[in-house]
Amino acid sequence: MKQKKNSYGLPGGAVLAQSLALSLGLVASAQAGEGMWMPQQLPQISKDLKAAGLQLDPAKLTQLTEFPMGAVISLGGCTASFVSPQGLVVTNHHCAYGSIQYNSTPQRDLLKNGFLAASLSDELPAAPGSRVYVTVAVSDVSDKVLDAKTQGLSGKARVDAIEAKQKSLTAACEQDAGHRCQVASFYGGLQYQLIKQMEIRDVRLVHAPALGVGLFGGDTDNWMWPRHTGDYSFYRAYVGPDGKPADFNAANKPYESKHFLKLASKPLNEGDFVMVTGYPGRTNRHRLPAEVDFAFGWEQPTRIKLMGEQLALIKQETAGRREAEIAMADRVAGLGNYFKNLQGQQASYEGSDILARKSQAFAELKQWISADAGRNKLYGADIAKVESLLAQRQAIARAEILLDLSAPRLLGTARTLLENAHQQAKADAERKPGFQARDQRRLSQGMEALDKRYDEQVDKRLTAHFLAKYLAQPAAQLNAPMLAALGLQAGMDEAAVKARLAVVYAGSKLANKAERMAWLKSDVAGFKASDDAFIKAAVALHADDEARENRDKEIAGQINQAYGSTMKALIAFKASKGEAVYPDANSTLRVAFGKVEGRKGAVDGGDWHAFTTLRGIPAKHKGEGEFNAPAEQLAAIQARKFDNYGVAALDSVPVNFLATLDTTGGNSGSPVLNDRAELVGLLFDGTLDSVIDSWDFDAKKSRSICLDARYMLWQMKVVDKAQRLLGEMGVK
Amino acid sequence: MKQKKNSYGLPGGAVLAQSLALSLGLVASAQAGEGMWMPQQLPQISKDLKAAGLQLDPAKLTQLTEFPMGAVISLGGCTASFVSPQGLVVTNHHCAYGSIQYNSTPQRDLLKNGFLAASLSDELPAAPGSRVYVTVAVSDVSDKVLDAKTQGLSGKARVDAIEAKQKSLTAACEQDAGHRCQVASFYGGLQYQLIKQMEIRDVRLVHAPALGVGLFGGDTDNWMWPRHTGDYSFYRAYVGPDGKPADFNAANKPYESKHFLKLASKPLNEGDFVMVTGYPGRTNRHRLPAEVDFAFGWEQPTRIKLMGEQLALIKQETAGRREAEIAMADRVAGLGNYFKNLQGQQASYEGSDILARKSQAFAELKQWISADAGRNKLYGADIAKVESLLAQRQAIARAEILLDLSAPRLLGTARTLLENAHQQAKADAERKPGFQARDQRRLSQGMEALDKRYDEQVDKRLTAHFLAKYLAQPAAQLNAPMLAALGLQAGMDEAAVKARLAVVYAGSKLANKAERMAWLKSDVAGFKASDDAFIKAAVALHADDEARENRDKEIAGQINQAYGSTMKALIAFKASKGEAVYPDANSTLRVAFGKVEGRKGAVDGGDWHAFTTLRGIPAKHKGEGEFNAPAEQLAAIQARKFDNYGVAALDSVPVNFLATLDTTGGNSGSPVLNDRAELVGLLFDGTLDSVIDSWDFDAKKSRSICLDARYMLWQMKVVDKAQRLLGEMGVK
Repeated sequence: MKQKKNSYGLPGGAVLAQSLALSLGLVASAQAGEGMWMPQQLPQISKDLKAAGLQLDPAKLTQLTEFPMGAVISLGGCTASFVSPQGLVVTNHHCAYGSIQYNSTPQRDLLKNGFLAASLSDELPAAPGSRVYVTVAVSDVSDKVLDAKTQGLSGKARVDAIEAKQKSLTAACEQDAGHRCQVASFYGGLQYQLIKQMEIRDVRLVHAPALGVGLFGGDTDNWMWPRHTGDYSFYRAYVGPDGKPADFNAANKPYESKHFLKLASKPLNEGDFVMVTGYPGRTNRHRLPAEVDFAFGWEQPTRIKLMGEQLALIKQETAGRREAEIAMADRVAGLGNYFKNLQGQQASYEGSDILARKSQAFAELKQWISADAGRNKLYGADIAKVESLLAQRQAIARAEILLDLSAPRLLGTARTLLENAHQQAKADAERKPGFQARDQRRLSQGMEALDKRYDEQVDKRLTAHFLAKYLAQPAAQLNAPMLAALGLQAGMDEAAVKARLAVVYAGSKLANKAERMAWLKSDVAGFKASDDAFIKAAVALHADDEARENRDKEIAGQINQAYGSTMKALIAFKASKGEAVYPDANSTLRVAFGKVEGRKGAVDGGDWHAFTTLRGIPAKHKGEGEFNAPAEQLAAIQARKFDNYGVAALDSVPVNFLATLDTTGGNSGSPVLNDRAELVGLLFDGTLDSVIDSWDFDAKKSRSICLDARYMLWQMKVVDKAQRLLGEMGVK
Repeated sequence: MKQKKNSYGLPGGAVLAQSLALSLGLVASAQAGEGMWMPQQLPQISKDLKAAGLQLDPAKLTQLTEFPMGAVISLGGCTASFVSPQGLVVTNHHCAYGSIQYNSTPQRDLLKNGFLAASLSDELPAAPGSRVYVTVAVSDVSDKVLDAKTQGLSGKARVDAIEAKQKSLTAACEQDAGHRCQVASFYGGLQYQLIKQMEIRDVRLVHAPALGVGLFGGDTDNWMWPRHTGDYSFYRAYVGPDGKPADFNAANKPYESKHFLKLASKPLNEGDFVMVTGYPGRTNRHRLPAEVDFAFGWEQPTRIKLMGEQLALIKQETAGRREAEIAMADRVAGLGNYFKNLQGQQASYEGSDILARKSQAFAELKQWISADAGRNKLYGADIAKVESLLAQRQAIARAEILLDLSAPRLLGTARTLLENAHQQAKADAERKPGFQARDQRRLSQGMEALDKRYDEQVDKRLTAHFLAKYLAQPAAQLNAPMLAALGLQAGMDEAAVKARLAVVYAGSKLANKAERMAWLKSDVAGFKASDDAFIKAAVALHADDEARENRDKEIAGQINQAYGSTMKALIAFKASKGEAVYPDANSTLRVAFGKVEGRKGAVDGGDWHAFTTLRGIPAKHKGEGEFNAPAEQLAAIQARKFDNYGVAALDSVPVNFLATLDTTGGNSGSPVLNDRAELVGLLFDGTLDSVIDSWDFDAKKSRSICLDARYMLWQMKVVDKAQRLLGEMGVK
């Protein structure tokens, strides 16, 4: 079972990004609303925070294991927070979706009807693999990762040296049982932090509202405003009798969360200060102009086109085959979501001045460098070559986009299995990241899960379609090993490719789960001796795969070095003006701040209010499909039973609100806090014209969509009678 | 070809309502926005009109054959207006839809690409049956229809007497060749007007924008705001060389329209006075509380449920059969539209205080009557019995709703054919309305058109479904002649009904067009001798059909008399307070006035602006389906080519606007005029929460949706290069 993907939920699994993500800081000061700040940066912008309305001392937010930051946790792909001393966790409904679905049966449909554990003993195991990550330590390891020797390296040698340091620091940290560690890279490889998190493995589902509340509006309302989604659910973290992480066991007890958030003691109004703490996944704010131009001028439009083709082909090939439809449902949802996201980005980009502004900012940086001999010596050479390095990587991306897209799914599986065999032959510390001992469980789960997400007919059709496109390119540009490995020839049309693929697919048993699991235990010799068609192809491709990987590492290492230098220049440039630079998001803990605010002229012909209310629910209710509010809820709305949660100015209970908070995927479930760090809501989405924020934040347009905590409490108290949990959270 | 149905377009064909529509005036004064006023009433509310901003003398609007009213014409189901001295007519795109479609071929797709006649000789014949009705005279004939003798009658005798008078007045009026006349009933049978219209039969299509302009937004945006639809098209009226109506002929010449509208000479802004002149179809504003309660408490919810079943069954039975889908498309669109409309009405009604207000107003009227002996004598008895009369009619509706719904379509055809034969045996003046010589052409067209809208499989399924429901009722309540005629028995289940229907359907040839056309010429004896299953059933049912019709007439006559009296009391009551009462809409010419106005809090979480602009078109554009703006238009928007039509405050060209105008279906295409009676737009829709206006006008909520004339002119000039027409309209 997989957690539901949503605009603001990343795919499941811990996203412990260790990528050498590239970044160039072109956005720098703490202007209202913009910035996903590292907690330790907050004192640098304390003036802005105070001016915006924060009552708390910003320094308190730098203490990650104290209140309030110690209450903020990661679920891997989503954010959550403790809201009681007994490990009670609140997050989004769409973040707990997989666990609700996992516990549902046609006879006891928790997804549809919701779930409320009457007591601790009724709390249900979350979906396999569910985790709660509690940060216990964060330390700057930049000097260790980029030691004197590594700083002198470039190319592949640099990448290898950094990787080796990351692995050894991680391994040492994980000696402490029950913990998961990562070395995260900031500012495109300029800084590194070692993050140590307690990994709680016994996670239980405590409460979820009915689907008609938690997912009210469904795909139709995704990224939309006005919104009326009760996107919340409750988990509880359990540990062994010794207080340490343990697998599920009836003897386990609730985790004693030293820090937890308290619900707001005063009403939230439009204009109020709010901040959000969480684990945003990835942004591209600091990209160079050349990268922006490449992304919007070629890469994203091309991806949109190709995704459109993928979606259409999957639809054709699954028509009338319900099982195939189910197998592809996850992929279709993910592709569709990404498709809508990229289209939204393109729409916002076109006609905007983003490229012009990025270009101007980069020109200013170069000017600042060249105006001073010392600076020129420090950064001049790197900044001069960074764009030509990027051009090299862009050329590869252009050449190989169809190659990547057209590989049969099971060939990818064969390559992963073979790479794993190669890596297992080495000492654990020498293995590539992703193939170490700590990764084996995830690899194995992936091989198991494939069954539920694979359909041969669909895979064949997609492969044939994109291979034919690939083969239509000039023969000299094609990857000869790939053609040889699959028995293809330049210029083959789709029918010819199809005929050839029929033979290849028929010659492999990798669609069989037991077969895949067995290969996880084979050594390289076993692969070389195999006559399985995809295993043979993987063996034949291995040298070229390795060569291409090394080629990419070579460029990445050069870019990493030049880019780090460019970022260093930027930080110095901004510092000379008294401004701070936040790093691009990388799935590590960040803080964003802003205010509750609607938007005038948000759509042509209309404005958006800051709050929606209960009134909108019966107005959207259709009694079926995506807009199907529970009868008890509708009755309570009709009877105006607002309890303590009515707001006079709204003449109703607030449901969702808009805020000028800088967030992105991975922030889902993040607590939204008021000026005293009290809980006022949960972040769960952004508006469609905010998806461009991945590249460029526009405070005038960008709005995050938050669940108002008052709606959650109202629903729990008035409709769902969740008194046990309300009491535990200190709500009267 | 049929004109496209739309929320604000009635089905095709002249709607010359002569119904004995019931009405009770509970809404009375000329408060801002409310009222579909008869032109001759305007002097009564001239103070309100002046206060609202009308510059023109209201008395000018009572002259129906002078400017500006003489420029307003009916297309039968839609409204239009002359905009040049050469008979150039502007109306909605959805009103000309059938004619555009009629002239389209796959090779020359005018519907998709739009059409612009380069010269007069390129103008194309509109769809068969297209008409332009120009009002030439209106006279009050209340004294003739309700003469002393008729006033003394009640029941069926009253209905028959009124009908006879209507027929003879109509016949006398239509002695003038080329004219169509009707006697329309106002205030539920209290007043009658004889309306004489020139019937122009040579109507030609002059210009229509591309579908991506004229129907931009499609069903998705129907009834919605913000809106961006270029809902306009141009016809031209042609007459014979003698200036009189004639069938299409190359020698015909454009009609010389003495009166025509001029385009506004000043910009339209939010808050400005606007008025609309047109032919609204039907409202129920003056219904008694008992009728309101019946409609929303039983009739409409029941219809919604039954329509939902119909739509689902049609979908099931046409799945995978493209031809059947096409045959049913019109019906599905019509049903779906009505379904959405009724659901919108119910949603607005539920939780509203409509019934309470109607009840209070009726109580006040009764109190006013009973407070005075003279008034009591005049109205007391009628008002006392009107509700019990209504209860009788409601009981019949409850008993027969399924009976009406479950009759096979071809049985209805057989009944119409037989009735026609019965009527043809009489002198023309004696025939029932709808079966006179003047009606034969329409009857014949209906018999022809059936082919394109009939699918036996669908019809059988619907009939079996609803008949089984009908037969499940207590046997004593069932219509014995119907059971006997179709060989049915009480309690039969759907399977049994289906088996019986198979025999009946197989025994009829009425699905054959030639067969139907032949029956139009048969006498009653021919019918009696037939062994066609549906003809036999019609013959068997005739006596009962006649008896039920007479029963209905008896009640209608009693209600007509009591109701007319109640309306008279209401008018007197209101007059005593210096207030005027507008009659319910009945497809006759009316004037509504209001202002351009957005709506705060129109949706939960948002406001509506008064205007949309060109900006919204690329924002909604998807490149396919319902949101597919032409590339040339998008390019002009992107290049900000606003020509003379840009509005600084909007930084764009206005596209559609909202106005507090009281309108309904039939008003489609109506000219929207400013305070000088200059053309500023075309009415084409209302918002979904305005559909309740059929029953109750709420000035705070109700908004009509209008095409801004500046958008039409911009599109014609900048994108479609329609210089010939612009010149003809006096636009530089």
